[in-house]
Amino acid sequence: MLTISNRGNEMPESPIRKLVPFAEDAKKRGTKVYHLNIGQPDIKTPDVALNAIKNNELKVVEYSHSAGNISYRKKLAKYYQNIDININENDILITTGGSEAITFAFLTCLNPGDEVVIPEPFYANYNGFAVSAGVTVKPITSTIDNSFALPSIEEFEKLITPKTKGIVICNPNNPTGYLYSETELKELSKIVKKHNLYLFSDEVYREFCYDGEKHFSAMYLKDIEQNVILMDSVSKRYSECGVRIGAMITKNKNVITTALKFAQARLSPPSYGQIVGEASLETPPEYFDEVYNEYIDRRNFMVEKLREIPGVVCPMPKGAFYVVVKLPIDDSDKFAQWLLEEFDYNGQTVMVAPATGFYSTKGLGKQEVRIAYVLNKEDLASAIECLRVGLEQYPGRV
Amino acid sequence: MLTISNRGNEMPESPIRKLVPFAEDAKKRGTKVYHLNIGQPDIKTPDVALNAIKNNELKVVEYSHSAGNISYRKKLAKYYQNIDININENDILITTGGSEAITFAFLTCLNPGDEVVIPEPFYANYNGFAVSAGVTVKPITSTIDNSFALPSIEEFEKLITPKTKGIVICNPNNPTGYLYSETELKELSKIVKKHNLYLFSDEVYREFCYDGEKHFSAMYLKDIEQNVILMDSVSKRYSECGVRIGAMITKNKNVITTALKFAQARLSPPSYGQIVGEASLETPPEYFDEVYNEYIDRRNFMVEKLREIPGVVCPMPKGAFYVVVKLPIDDSDKFAQWLLEEFDYNGQTVMVAPATGFYSTKGLGKQEVRIAYVLNKEDLASAIECLRVGLEQYPGRV
Repeated sequence: MLTISNRGNEMPESPIRKLVPFAEDAKKRGTKVYHLNIGQPDIKTPDVALNAIKNNELKVVEYSHSAGNISYRKKLAKYYQNIDININENDILITTGGSEAITFAFLTCLNPGDEVVIPEPFYANYNGFAVSAGVTVKPITSTIDNSFALPSIEEFEKLITPKTKGIVICNPNNPTGYLYSETELKELSKIVKKHNLYLFSDEVYREFCYDGEKHFSAMYLKDIEQNVILMDSVSKRYSECGVRIGAMITKNKNVITTALKFAQARLSPPSYGQIVGEASLETPPEYFDEVYNEYIDRRNFMVEKLREIPGVVCPMPKGAFYVVVKLPIDDSDKFAQWLLEEFDYNGQTVMVAPATGFYSTKGLGKQEVRIAYVLNKEDLASAIECLRVGLEQYPGRV
Repeated sequence: MLTISNRGNEMPESPIRKLVPFAEDAKKRGTKVYHLNIGQPDIKTPDVALNAIKNNELKVVEYSHSAGNISYRKKLAKYYQNIDININENDILITTGGSEAITFAFLTCLNPGDEVVIPEPFYANYNGFAVSAGVTVKPITSTIDNSFALPSIEEFEKLITPKTKGIVICNPNNPTGYLYSETELKELSKIVKKHNLYLFSDEVYREFCYDGEKHFSAMYLKDIEQNVILMDSVSKRYSECGVRIGAMITKNKNVITTALKFAQARLSPPSYGQIVGEASLETPPEYFDEVYNEYIDRRNFMVEKLREIPGVVCPMPKGAFYVVVKLPIDDSDKFAQWLLEEFDYNGQTVMVAPATGFYSTKGLGKQEVRIAYVLNKEDLASAIECLRVGLEQYPGRV
């Protein structure tokens, strides 16, 4: 029989994409839709990267080394050394986006049927990579009451079974914007060490930490050096989502050697993307200052405006460019659809990501949405104004 | 326990890469190594593609559509329509290389434990994709006696079990250079239909058919239209191996819809690669004429020279740019290593790919090597001369 595989059937559809047809219909009706739902920044890619592509002299676009160009890996190692992550080029596998780094990490470290614990709400595509690898996600719930801090070690302990092989964290966090502290990471390392688990640490938003807070990488945890797999990407750091360049990094030689076999099977990461990634390491500090100031400005403005709306609970995000907020509504999926399908305010509306898609536990996130502050302040103001009026008019308001 | 996954341990190492350290050592000794072992053509990428990159105007390198840019898919559909493959943009998923097309096809159509039948010798990385997906490869042996023609339907029937869910073919074939005929494809379609299997057809060498032979695509088999998954790539067609752009194509709506969910999880294929792929569709016919003439010239020269060597059996390849030849040796792995480690002829040697790596059945391919004619004729002449002298001096000659 010609059937779709079980994993194909189980593969979740992106929680945001379900709403895309409604957004398209709204646009067809002439309604302007502000997108607070996406993780695609509007920030310009650094000139040094764009120029590297325009001035490239490739005549034959050949395969690169399966682990990525050695020149890129050497320079990238220096980037990490500069932030006290002491690795070298042999600890790095250049991947096709952070997505492939996660895939390689799961395929290398986990068997089908193994379990990984992930604090929820979490980046929805972890589900997809888990389904592809036959791995079961065990969510551990973090809550808006303490701004989505890391759950206690006792809560983690309750979820550990003989099948548990790893913990996945995203720091700073997508979707919550929470930045895990050094103390939290050190607490986490105890349970990782006790049960000898892998710690998969997604740090693609590393540079986006606010209010003077310093990022504490899982790679700083010397006690569990062999357990940590770092997953990284140029996508957000340099606004280069489309180049599809990431990295899987670990001091664990068995892991990197095995992951390289998966990398060899797919031949090589994108050549042009690697040119961009390598050139981006020369991005001047002013670029990051500008980006930082822009996001801080947006964040402060957004939080202020959201907190002015009656019934809205908005934590102060300390990193990334997302926040999960609580709204006075019955059902975030219905509300997000309603905003696109039935609502407009002066010919405008707003698209938000229902938080239900970021929770693995059924029923959670019904009063929460993720907001990405990836729009300029003027658009952000209009978007939040739409949200404010929408909340007034929404029939499912509670 | 911190262990590597079973699939990580089972993941085969590339049969060619095992020899790379020996090649590097030879180069360090000052020996010139001719690479007949690789599938990286020396052919120049079309100017129209290189210029598209140099002249691109992207300011923010954004994610593209997960299925690939619609403009690219529309133009690509026309390319297929021009060769009588009647698909449209919704039947196409742009992938990160042909590698990802195979991965998505396996993940979508096959469950762990399912079996696929593949004529051997076959492209070694199929093993890697099968291991990643938990799929078992059942090889069906083709032999040099009839130039590696498709085995008979009776032979296929012997391998079909309740677990068999698909057949994988590569046409024209890597590593053998064999071009499956319309008759062979139609025979194959009978068994596909009878057992309702998927037919995964890798046609990345489509344009490389010689001696007036016409390529017969699996997509022409109207009887099994829902069963066929076409896997394609720009890598060889335009000498763009490094851009990592391929495509998964099928008329089967369930398959394409499900594969899109896997594509969404990894967000998008490379943006710059898509610019290259789209521009490449404007490659002038003269480019292909030149490439065709170059390969025909190399092939004829290579076959003539190889057949002059006593004890060498060389079929006439009808497609791609490889041939599997039989040599008067005891063990192709030992021979290939010996050529690099102990032999030189006027300071030169040659690297070939032992065919053992292309067979799934243990013990086969010991007297065979794959030769890629991706070098210019002068280098090809020197390489074959090294092979000739090497065969005279090799202690394991039989």
